[in-house]
Amino acid sequence: MNDPQNPALAAMMQRAVAERVYNFSPGPAALPAEVLQQAAEEMLSWHGSGVSVMEMSHRSREFESILAQAEADLRELLQVPKDYRILFLQGGAIGENAIVPLNLMRRLDAERPKADFVVTGTWSVKTEQEARRYGEVNIAASSVEQKFVRIPDVADWKLADDSAYLHLCTNETIVGVEFQEVPEVGQKHGRVVVADVSSHILSRPVDWSRLQVVYGGAQKNIGPAGVTIVIVREDLLGHAHPLCPSAFNWRLAAEHGSMYNTPPTYAIYIAGLVFQWLKRQGGVPAVEQRNIAKAKALYDFLDQSAFYRNEIDPSCRSRMNVPFFLADESRNEAFLAQARAAGLVQLKGHKSVGGMRASIYNAMPLEGVMALIDFMREFERSAA
Amino acid sequence: MNDPQNPALAAMMQRAVAERVYNFSPGPAALPAEVLQQAAEEMLSWHGSGVSVMEMSHRSREFESILAQAEADLRELLQVPKDYRILFLQGGAIGENAIVPLNLMRRLDAERPKADFVVTGTWSVKTEQEARRYGEVNIAASSVEQKFVRIPDVADWKLADDSAYLHLCTNETIVGVEFQEVPEVGQKHGRVVVADVSSHILSRPVDWSRLQVVYGGAQKNIGPAGVTIVIVREDLLGHAHPLCPSAFNWRLAAEHGSMYNTPPTYAIYIAGLVFQWLKRQGGVPAVEQRNIAKAKALYDFLDQSAFYRNEIDPSCRSRMNVPFFLADESRNEAFLAQARAAGLVQLKGHKSVGGMRASIYNAMPLEGVMALIDFMREFERSAA
Repeated sequence: MNDPQNPALAAMMQRAVAERVYNFSPGPAALPAEVLQQAAEEMLSWHGSGVSVMEMSHRSREFESILAQAEADLRELLQVPKDYRILFLQGGAIGENAIVPLNLMRRLDAERPKADFVVTGTWSVKTEQEARRYGEVNIAASSVEQKFVRIPDVADWKLADDSAYLHLCTNETIVGVEFQEVPEVGQKHGRVVVADVSSHILSRPVDWSRLQVVYGGAQKNIGPAGVTIVIVREDLLGHAHPLCPSAFNWRLAAEHGSMYNTPPTYAIYIAGLVFQWLKRQGGVPAVEQRNIAKAKALYDFLDQSAFYRNEIDPSCRSRMNVPFFLADESRNEAFLAQARAAGLVQLKGHKSVGGMRASIYNAMPLEGVMALIDFMREFERSAA
Repeated sequence: MNDPQNPALAAMMQRAVAERVYNFSPGPAALPAEVLQQAAEEMLSWHGSGVSVMEMSHRSREFESILAQAEADLRELLQVPKDYRILFLQGGAIGENAIVPLNLMRRLDAERPKADFVVTGTWSVKTEQEARRYGEVNIAASSVEQKFVRIPDVADWKLADDSAYLHLCTNETIVGVEFQEVPEVGQKHGRVVVADVSSHILSRPVDWSRLQVVYGGAQKNIGPAGVTIVIVREDLLGHAHPLCPSAFNWRLAAEHGSMYNTPPTYAIYIAGLVFQWLKRQGGVPAVEQRNIAKAKALYDFLDQSAFYRNEIDPSCRSRMNVPFFLADESRNEAFLAQARAAGLVQLKGHKSVGGMRASIYNAMPLEGVMALIDFMREFERSAA
């Protein structure tokens, strides 16, 4: 099956590739075409095994090799330290909104478990609201009054002394703000910082001296919806609430190599193909440079235009999710329809924000961003 | 992409089909080759959309149509009554071992929540043990002393008067016992019966007068690991424990059409292709007849042989999972190696039982079972 010289296969793939569009979906999101092509080629028989990855027992030698390779590649790409465990779970980031406090909120044996939250957008609101089921929530800082256009200055964060952890959402997909770095807030002295990195994982390096747990749903920057990645420093395992379901107990998942229950095998396989693709691109530092270039091109265009605008403070604009508005919102429908006709899809903003949003994750090439900018320039010109 | 007349594509697929083996894996398990072929064809561009199903926003019109069709087809195939809701969740059956009691154990507002369990194999042991976190467990009957070779007679079940539900595992994958029918135990008078149907869903009809909740991981009889199907009578929604994670709250899932969080979109798509395939096969009644024929051929062969044996009482042998032993267990390794060489894979029994196991789910054709029987007959002859 894996024969790039097969002219028949090449013809079929060429036809599909010709149909492909630039997909700015916020998630599930665009994947590299060459990853999808490999998946199609291997669908009926993986590496001559005569079975699809989808049909493999998770206990088979074949699948165990796929899982081990995916984990090793992710560890290499993100330079994950030896004392951090990588888990492949289920339930997405909304699941983790409960699973994190179920696993971590009681780690200090406090009478009343507590955690700190910095609220920087729609996702961190959801996260702190779910955590309230499991203990006391301290809102250390919030930009809700500023409509989330700026991440609160760390000097103003009111962290509790007795909280089990501080939670951040380091890229807010809906409002489009991103931490350019995670601040030092006492991690050296034992403070535990947890980050939801769903929508920018692998788009930039992680500073492990400042993050003790990171987690994310795969469906934005990695692969198919249905696999959740949790990377946790191993001393933080073993503090789960007695009512934490076994399938979502991080310690059990770590002890069983993500096989306490049947893992989402095919989604892990696709994630693994994306990790291999990232390595071929030059790894995270190279991909980060491309992401910087893509984001700069789009924000520079928005900033020079009176026809379009982005409202986020330049110090914390997301490289991944770029919301923007037309000055004349009566043109929104025409914009979306003409964009779609030009092969640029999924540009409508989240219903809670309105306007437009271009999600430009790792798999979006610079050519796609330039095609969007060209379209936007032409739309502006024709509307004048 | 969907061009069965494309000779290039046909050649590629033919090559892969030629590599394919008969896969007796207990799960994740064999899928119909034509489903995999369709998935491969549509991988880069679904129905001319220019995107893979894996890349579609779950809120897109395209994915919403895929989800709605999958749900409608499943409802038709299983004749699900109007007052039952179909949910597509995550976490598998091991996840549901906690999620069921979290959603259901408190429905009676009893001081001490309670549920009944009939223990018929390894899976129902796991289920009742996990439920102990959430309330009182009444073991109404158990065949553990008989090493699970027979399902306890319903006349001997000691059901509690004040239990929130009775739990059954209606097909035990590891030991190979299956309920041939769910008994009447007061369902007409309000008793709620919950069944883990992971390993025989869609292999036979469901008697909805006797089951109020059924659930299962998809990776045995439906599709890829990572999607869990829950079918629940709607009056049973709304009783969740306050600590139940929102992502696993059945009421929220029902209210949001399985989109409270991002669902495992690609796994749902594959499940939908399997549902379509089942309809082309003639639906559940036709598939059940094939399953009866497959199981009868294999059990009849085992019963006439002194070389092989199955230890399960004929009244409750599973049509899906057929464990068997060689009289001379020193030949086990040779059996497995020669089977593999003959294109018959994943026949090793579960480590807790030993011996062999042939899982012959819906996607296993009669030809595969006959090939296994031919191989076993020849292996017996050559060992004589």
